[in-house]
Amino acid sequence: MKAYLDCFLCFFIQALKTARLVTSDEKAILQILKDVSVYLSQASFDVTPSEIGLGVYRILSQRTGVEDPYKEVKERCIQQALSLYPELKRLIETSEDRLMTAVRLSIAGNVIDFGTGSSFDLKQELGTILSQDFAVNRYKEFRDALEKAQNIVYIADNAGETVFDRLLIEEINRPVIYVVREKPIINDATREDARLSGLGDVSEIMSSGCDAPGNILKFCSDEFLKIYGSADLVISKGQGNYEALSDEARPIFFLLKAKCRVVARNLGVEEGSIVLADARQERKE
Amino acid sequence: MKAYLDCFLCFFIQALKTARLVTSDEKAILQILKDVSVYLSQASFDVTPSEIGLGVYRILSQRTGVEDPYKEVKERCIQQALSLYPELKRLIETSEDRLMTAVRLSIAGNVIDFGTGSSFDLKQELGTILSQDFAVNRYKEFRDALEKAQNIVYIADNAGETVFDRLLIEEINRPVIYVVREKPIINDATREDARLSGLGDVSEIMSSGCDAPGNILKFCSDEFLKIYGSADLVISKGQGNYEALSDEARPIFFLLKAKCRVVARNLGVEEGSIVLADARQERKE
Repeated sequence: MKAYLDCFLCFFIQALKTARLVTSDEKAILQILKDVSVYLSQASFDVTPSEIGLGVYRILSQRTGVEDPYKEVKERCIQQALSLYPELKRLIETSEDRLMTAVRLSIAGNVIDFGTGSSFDLKQELGTILSQDFAVNRYKEFRDALEKAQNIVYIADNAGETVFDRLLIEEINRPVIYVVREKPIINDATREDARLSGLGDVSEIMSSGCDAPGNILKFCSDEFLKIYGSADLVISKGQGNYEALSDEARPIFFLLKAKCRVVARNLGVEEGSIVLADARQERKE
Repeated sequence: MKAYLDCFLCFFIQALKTARLVTSDEKAILQILKDVSVYLSQASFDVTPSEIGLGVYRILSQRTGVEDPYKEVKERCIQQALSLYPELKRLIETSEDRLMTAVRLSIAGNVIDFGTGSSFDLKQELGTILSQDFAVNRYKEFRDALEKAQNIVYIADNAGETVFDRLLIEEINRPVIYVVREKPIINDATREDARLSGLGDVSEIMSSGCDAPGNILKFCSDEFLKIYGSADLVISKGQGNYEALSDEARPIFFLLKAKCRVVARNLGVEEGSIVLADARQERKE
């Protein structure tokens, strides 16, 4: 999926938000915004938002000297999600269609912004997602693919959401390779985040070698590409990975909430929709 | 009032919104956003947002070849406001404090975005503003100043809002110089807009010579500055004029709704507040 005009604004919103997380020096932040301006004025928009975003976050790291601005946010997210784990596990165990409930929870994990949400909001969001209709629903295809799959690759998105992924992987109950970012980028999950979330007990954690906020194949390691190439089922979480992989014509199931209009438009759904999409079947603009 | 970091984002939001009003050519719009990026990367932020904004809108005009992108929006706004005029006039005539009602309506005119609002929303907004508490309320000072004033200068903001200004000027019932922009900029009122709104019947319409989206004194004509200098009461409508004049230490009353957090912060009020402020008395950050 290529970047759209709205992404242009979003990069500045992200840059300002992240810079403010690291410093309160308004002059320094202004200079970062100006540096991002120069970068974007020269950037190609014929690539994915994730690829452009990588450059924005590199500017942020370089100018602030902080490699992982979301370190504390991520730790808090994981702890909050872990504290919910027993309750969510029971929810799955007592539901009629355990796999469907686990899929929904996994998407719920994608939507919740742990950085700002209180636990009250969290529960409300969970309730919404558990009953919300899918705008794209390839559940049957997903279940069928799961039954046949020998090599399952699960591409992670955010820290905290990782705990929700663990619940789904436990339901899948088959060998899964859980793929994380090579280095910290925004609040995306790294090896350490996955380990802290308990993914090491239920899957093999590996880095894709990519440190963009989306699993951009040309930035991935040969090791990952080999595993990805031989996977008969890929589960891709969140918008960033969707952006990076939406044009692939192979068995990838995208589990996400369309949080911005750019991704919603690309999927042909309303903003705010929840989606279980199949890369081989969905309409692309 | 100087620009803040949030203005940086807002310029891109405005540029994208305005460009989309003029063209649907996404490549052309992307180039405009890139040109705005180059401009902002080199701009001083030690000036008012209006001054920086002027440069943004010049890029828009130059690149699109459209000098007045908001021409149709403005005409529609004025017609909608004129259709409400009889009802609003009755509202004033039947109210206990006619001047206060006219002041509130004048602020209501500032808040309503005629470009997108339906007539239902319009009435709802009017109802809100008529009963909303002022976050800053210098009404007594305003009424006292009005009683003594010989030379009243009224600095206009948006087209459509002009009709609401006319209602207040009719209540003031004294000679008023109604000041508009020299050339079209966003949806700010020009001579023609003021005339179409009926201001010619109740005031002397003049241009300030300035074509920024705020009445920046260094861009104003000598003719205006002379009149402004000898005015014993200045009424300033809206955020753009507030940005330009908030640091003046003279009898200026600002009538506005704080629509963005930058102006709200500068005034020390919550976003969404309505304000009747006195330049000589309000706290500045």
